[in-house]
Amino acid sequence: MTEPGNRRPGGRSARVRRAVLDATLDLLHTHGMDGLTVADVSARAEVHETTIYRRWGTRENLMIDALLEDAEESLPIPDTGSLRDDLIGYLTSLAVYLGTPRGNDFDRALAAAGDDPAASAARNHYWNTRYARSGHIITRAIDRGELPDTTDPRQTVEMLVAPLHFKVVLTREPLDPNLPARLVDTLLHGIAATQPAPMTTTRTTGISESMRP
Amino acid sequence: MTEPGNRRPGGRSARVRRAVLDATLDLLHTHGMDGLTVADVSARAEVHETTIYRRWGTRENLMIDALLEDAEESLPIPDTGSLRDDLIGYLTSLAVYLGTPRGNDFDRALAAAGDDPAASAARNHYWNTRYARSGHIITRAIDRGELPDTTDPRQTVEMLVAPLHFKVVLTREPLDPNLPARLVDTLLHGIAATQPAPMTTTRTTGISESMRP
Repeated sequence: MTEPGNRRPGGRSARVRRAVLDATLDLLHTHGMDGLTVADVSARAEVHETTIYRRWGTRENLMIDALLEDAEESLPIPDTGSLRDDLIGYLTSLAVYLGTPRGNDFDRALAAAGDDPAASAARNHYWNTRYARSGHIITRAIDRGELPDTTDPRQTVEMLVAPLHFKVVLTREPLDPNLPARLVDTLLHGIAATQPAPMTTTRTTGISESMRP
Repeated sequence: MTEPGNRRPGGRSARVRRAVLDATLDLLHTHGMDGLTVADVSARAEVHETTIYRRWGTRENLMIDALLEDAEESLPIPDTGSLRDDLIGYLTSLAVYLGTPRGNDFDRALAAAGDDPAASAARNHYWNTRYARSGHIITRAIDRGELPDTTDPRQTVEMLVAPLHFKVVLTREPLDPNLPARLVDTLLHGIAATQPAPMTTTRTTGISESMRP
């Protein structure tokens, strides 16, 4: 704000930001979160350390800003007019991203990050920002009447993205290309969707229960 | 098998196993997966290293056997006769387990474990065993007619447990006591389950579409 001339897109300020974030991502990929220092970023990006600290405040904010930028570029939010298509498109991008060495490493780096106040604040900012972006898919579907207005955007997105992250970080299973559609269809329609007409005697129980005072 | 007299429950063999697994869990909790050595386990359990290697083969197998034993004790598989109650009961136990310092640490240790062949084989055994146990909830519900027989037990369990692990390992959010019931009801009935009779003007669209040839 003190140098308005530098804030136009493509100006010196944007070039500095880009150089610093690119250097941060490269160093994160090679050294992990614990190994990243602002001094290394400064040397690699050819930007003074003081400039970096003035702009990002903490090492953690810098890392999270770089990871958010990377995720934002890799994970566009579709707007096809169909909830199912938007969700499958988004999850497919996420599966592709998490399947790359870089996306895979970054997810596991986030899983290994510390719990000190600076790391926690940066992490909360990271996930809140990602949920705010992907949640648009859900709020637009509510606006179109595709979902009840009681639908919780964050929980809905979480039930779809969590299995992908779980496989990448914990079970280390490959991400099947059909997984996004399977997850979306299961969540949209439920696993007990045929239940109104069950084939067992539980129908009787249902009727008697509905007749209780 | 060479010492049948020692294989009765409560015999020397069972006591050795118990002592080694308890020592392994304690050391895992304090030192993490990378820091655990069979020599330390041997000293703490007062069991010869050769006995441990003869019985478990590798350091990784020992850790995973200890983690499985811990999870099995903490995560009983309910059998109430109701799919919903079984799933909520199981997820509630999991949320409690992951909310303890030990369960939380073990989950994050699994997330940080390596990808060498011994670690990968042990990890696959760990998750396959856990899915085999929890999958009984789904197969019993299929047998009772509560679920279609095309239901995939592993994917179903995964969609419910993944959000808990995701919060513990990645977003580091506390686990709300109501979360298990919310996840189960959402998965059973789907988020678009009320769609046949939407409350918005899309109703018109629904009717006209149903009249198409």
